[in-house]
Amino acid sequence: MSASPATHPLDPLTVEEVQTAAETLLEDIKCTAAEIRFKVIDLAEPPKAATLQHLHHKGPAPDRKARVYYHRRTSPSLLIAIVNIATRQVEKKYDAPDSQGPVDWEEFELVNNACNNHPEVQAEIAKLKLPPNARVLNDPWAFGTDDANERRRLFQCYMYVALNDDPEANHYSLPIPLAPIFDAHTLELVELQRLPMGAGDELDPETQPWTPVQPVEYSASIMGEDGFRKDLKPLQVIQPEGPSFKILGRHVEWQKWSFQLGWTLREGPVLHDVQYDGRPLFYRVSMSEMTVPYGDPRSPYHRKQAFDLGDSGFGLTSNSLTLGCDCLGHIAYFSGVRVTGSGKPVVMPNVVCMHEIDDGIGWKHTNFRSFKSSVVRNRQLVVQCTATVANYEYILAFVLDQAANLHIEVRATGIVSTMPIRQGLQVPWGTVVAPGVLAVNHQHIFCARVDPILDGDSANTIAYDECHPVINEPDLDPHGCAFRVKTTPIDRPGGYELDINKNRTFKIINEARTNAVSGKPHGYKLHPVPSQMLMMNPNTFNFRRGVFTSKAIWVTKYQDNELWASGEFTNQSREDTGLAIWAKRDENVKNEDVVLWHSFGVTHVTRPEDFPVMPVEKFVMSLKPANFFELNPSNDVPRSNQGVNKSTLHAVEPENCCRSSRI
Amino acid sequence: MSASPATHPLDPLTVEEVQTAAETLLEDIKCTAAEIRFKVIDLAEPPKAATLQHLHHKGPAPDRKARVYYHRRTSPSLLIAIVNIATRQVEKKYDAPDSQGPVDWEEFELVNNACNNHPEVQAEIAKLKLPPNARVLNDPWAFGTDDANERRRLFQCYMYVALNDDPEANHYSLPIPLAPIFDAHTLELVELQRLPMGAGDELDPETQPWTPVQPVEYSASIMGEDGFRKDLKPLQVIQPEGPSFKILGRHVEWQKWSFQLGWTLREGPVLHDVQYDGRPLFYRVSMSEMTVPYGDPRSPYHRKQAFDLGDSGFGLTSNSLTLGCDCLGHIAYFSGVRVTGSGKPVVMPNVVCMHEIDDGIGWKHTNFRSFKSSVVRNRQLVVQCTATVANYEYILAFVLDQAANLHIEVRATGIVSTMPIRQGLQVPWGTVVAPGVLAVNHQHIFCARVDPILDGDSANTIAYDECHPVINEPDLDPHGCAFRVKTTPIDRPGGYELDINKNRTFKIINEARTNAVSGKPHGYKLHPVPSQMLMMNPNTFNFRRGVFTSKAIWVTKYQDNELWASGEFTNQSREDTGLAIWAKRDENVKNEDVVLWHSFGVTHVTRPEDFPVMPVEKFVMSLKPANFFELNPSNDVPRSNQGVNKSTLHAVEPENCCRSSRI
Repeated sequence: MSASPATHPLDPLTVEEVQTAAETLLEDIKCTAAEIRFKVIDLAEPPKAATLQHLHHKGPAPDRKARVYYHRRTSPSLLIAIVNIATRQVEKKYDAPDSQGPVDWEEFELVNNACNNHPEVQAEIAKLKLPPNARVLNDPWAFGTDDANERRRLFQCYMYVALNDDPEANHYSLPIPLAPIFDAHTLELVELQRLPMGAGDELDPETQPWTPVQPVEYSASIMGEDGFRKDLKPLQVIQPEGPSFKILGRHVEWQKWSFQLGWTLREGPVLHDVQYDGRPLFYRVSMSEMTVPYGDPRSPYHRKQAFDLGDSGFGLTSNSLTLGCDCLGHIAYFSGVRVTGSGKPVVMPNVVCMHEIDDGIGWKHTNFRSFKSSVVRNRQLVVQCTATVANYEYILAFVLDQAANLHIEVRATGIVSTMPIRQGLQVPWGTVVAPGVLAVNHQHIFCARVDPILDGDSANTIAYDECHPVINEPDLDPHGCAFRVKTTPIDRPGGYELDINKNRTFKIINEARTNAVSGKPHGYKLHPVPSQMLMMNPNTFNFRRGVFTSKAIWVTKYQDNELWASGEFTNQSREDTGLAIWAKRDENVKNEDVVLWHSFGVTHVTRPEDFPVMPVEKFVMSLKPANFFELNPSNDVPRSNQGVNKSTLHAVEPENCCRSSRI
Repeated sequence: MSASPATHPLDPLTVEEVQTAAETLLEDIKCTAAEIRFKVIDLAEPPKAATLQHLHHKGPAPDRKARVYYHRRTSPSLLIAIVNIATRQVEKKYDAPDSQGPVDWEEFELVNNACNNHPEVQAEIAKLKLPPNARVLNDPWAFGTDDANERRRLFQCYMYVALNDDPEANHYSLPIPLAPIFDAHTLELVELQRLPMGAGDELDPETQPWTPVQPVEYSASIMGEDGFRKDLKPLQVIQPEGPSFKILGRHVEWQKWSFQLGWTLREGPVLHDVQYDGRPLFYRVSMSEMTVPYGDPRSPYHRKQAFDLGDSGFGLTSNSLTLGCDCLGHIAYFSGVRVTGSGKPVVMPNVVCMHEIDDGIGWKHTNFRSFKSSVVRNRQLVVQCTATVANYEYILAFVLDQAANLHIEVRATGIVSTMPIRQGLQVPWGTVVAPGVLAVNHQHIFCARVDPILDGDSANTIAYDECHPVINEPDLDPHGCAFRVKTTPIDRPGGYELDINKNRTFKIINEARTNAVSGKPHGYKLHPVPSQMLMMNPNTFNFRRGVFTSKAIWVTKYQDNELWASGEFTNQSREDTGLAIWAKRDENVKNEDVVLWHSFGVTHVTRPEDFPVMPVEKFVMSLKPANFFELNPSNDVPRSNQGVNKSTLHAVEPENCCRSSRI
């Protein structure tokens, strides 16, 4: 194992660093590895001021530090340590007995096994009279919150059946009406909760024998060759001269862009120190949080509300990617590191992929007199991960293009969360997506975090433009055709709403820098994803645990460590300790170090078409320059031409020839 | 010239048919070709009832007919004829003296030359004291409307300078303050209108000498080799086994989809008789209209409002596409036919292209126990055209995918309309995008038309779903987490609004057919493009000419020939004769032959980044099945695998290796 020094203060922890952090902590607390369970070891990011001093002004590199979540095996109480890796010292150590840390794989496995092996659970399963080939599985779910006084660490184990041994058997197609609750610390059965099969909370008096039904499968081996369409021809992407990107460590350069590719267990990929043509744009761009409340009042579904970053982690649940599946073309991979319960670093290979794509036409103009065309294709760089959070998949991508746009794209796919339902019944809370299978309607609300540093100046402003018609100014506008842009700078933190009817557009501006051509301040505007916000009322736990879901736009003044929209600990949380607090501070945010947050998502009214695996729903938010450049930043992209593109012509059979071309 | 019979009643007119239509009309009206000017000869679509009888029930093929717009050279009065090509008879003939037909290339050229050669215009140009190498150009624009009594056919010639002979010299970077108005019939100068250079209507007392300024160019030959970035590597798409589509005439089959690829001079590509897996979905899908009002009250800009389909035509202005520019991969092309002023058919080669693309992941699920993944890529079929309407480009594409989604995508690009402005000045109506160049803020509002025929039944219903929280029902929902879907069928035609806060989702349903799995009616839902609607008040010409711009959703009862949102004749129109009338009829539209229209677009607040050629702004509306299929329609798509995809791995230099992978 080589001792490689960190090359960038915001790089993820290395294997060695994770190991050092674990060892340092164990020494400090005088414990053996067997006495505690490590949950998370991730980079504790250095203060922004020191980091910028180092990156842009040759200041010293800040010390590498780790944030460690752990607990003693004898107690469920969450412990937190900040470990200085450079000095091998524990700098801070505190407990958070009222908070639950995220799920870790070890406890997940323990709960999973406890449920499967528990005699009472098995006795209940026996009542189902399952066929002999049936395998019973359970997915331990974050318990959620319906009681402000609950302090136990609980998991709700939703249970399913698989009727074969296929590694991709779709057990979500065969939910059974059992959802035992386990204490993750004691591994005791807290309640053998049964699930309603009807429209209301009432249960069958007794668990009934299972009604045989065919699962809807997606496994290629189960479906067999005849299950597939035959007429899809291969489509390949080749880059005969290699990619246009350069990678040095985790520093990426591509088409005038540069950034440091961070990664955390919580967020997955993170972009640091994003620059275009040597001009700083963003200090940090990340997906900050995502929550999924389910709109079903029946117990225990009323409690179902996952925070898939805070409870689980897009990094921790990221797939190890392989060539030819998630991307076409020439692919670079980046790995991550997690820690085992006993403090051993584990490499997570290929959790992030990077490649170029062609997104059609980037710009085009044809001179209608000369018929001469210039076309530039829209080449993009995609930095992507897939997080599998039990049944569901999120594909998160940062997409850069040559017109200096930065897009954050989410594709929602995977298998919708399923509940059993009496066959033939419909309930108002969702759609029957397969026989005996209810997919409850739910919301996914994401929150992206954009920490700008336009032109390298920490003092930026968030403002919004609105377009208003000129009204009742007949001298100015006798024909009533005029409209004006009204710009409102935001000077106080808070949550703000989109307003499409006014074309309200939020933008980051640097009031100190004026565009030489337009005379307007340098800026980047947000193209949002207009979405229904959280439907639940402010007095619900759904709302109080994730206040970010209530407004599309949030503005806060930067403070170190304020990275996650709902606060640090979301698992079984009772109150949001993030934006709910930070956005309430009475402080100036105009011409300050400011952070822009965008909440967006979807209210998913489920369809049979979403089952067994759901076709992607794609959401794209974009950051686009507005008066930041003096002309189209992609004006200098080489023009598209057949010599390079080598497209091929579809020969039309004479008898099928486009008839109109016969002159 | 071969006499090829039409194979489908909705195919565009062939060269022979255009010729026959022209000859038949000339015979009927006893004129020589020299006595009239043909403007448009396009398919007059047969009645829907007869067409469906033919297509789906083996009825006889309806006669092929042409719609002809023309006028006598001695009069500007618009004449219309419906010519039966099969019987060589003129079936209908009428005039529309109060309407203006669309622009045709012949008159465009005549006006262009009249302006360039007019001595008064030349005398005014002389005052500019342009350098000797300057070329003066003019773009004749649809005049617009500010006077309900105006009956002349007028063009406003916006004028520009090019300082070199390059075929792609960007004259839009050098607008001059002249915009003469010409009568297109008499070719007389109506007014030598000069343009304001300041914030208000006031003009310089006299045309002033031109202030020399460097144009912002995009021409590769002007920019020279040093003007380009050097590090973009080729990216090619290959399909070693050919494409997955089959083309027979204009009938296209691809991945369970089939459709007849129509094309009109007005709309460009049109999809007819769209089916998935043999199940009819849509009788006709088209872009129906698009209008661009400019928000500048200064004369003559107050009149600027192009209807780029009705005034010009996305088909007529379509680029002839060539390999390697507009698409990558294996490309099929389709041609169109237009008519000259003297009635000769002219083939417009390659005005539509079709090819497959890879759009990333289509769906994915990883079994988190077995780590086994299934990934399906999102293969799409793109049917695309580029319309160049003078300075501006619209790229219109119909995009089909394997999950039975149909997307309508518009990319707006090209060169924004520019006006001269005194250097150093800013005005509230737009942004200075280059020295002396103002790009006025404007709206683009499109209207797509979807004529559904779900399951082949003409009786369909438009309904909208909204998601509403359960409020004050503590017995049902003690924790306040529940929400319900409320469905409202639309029974009267009219304009409807989106409401994102309620997740209002419009859908087409067939109430007679119930999904066997979900128990809900077969449907297709619209994923709209939420947009600011027209800002101008209902009493303005902007509004009255294009009422479709005022609401996002329109519902009408089908009637033959009601294809274009603002009515048949938009050029210098005074009133909308389309949706403004059709949507007011008091008639039932529930369980009827119903048409869904979606208006969407953008309020374009211009940026220097939009100049010289604007990076694409992309708008995508989608039609997605909802309870139309019993499971994910793309469940049977072969899984993505490296054997087929042949991706390549980016080798990381050992010293740059992701440090975290060193264990």
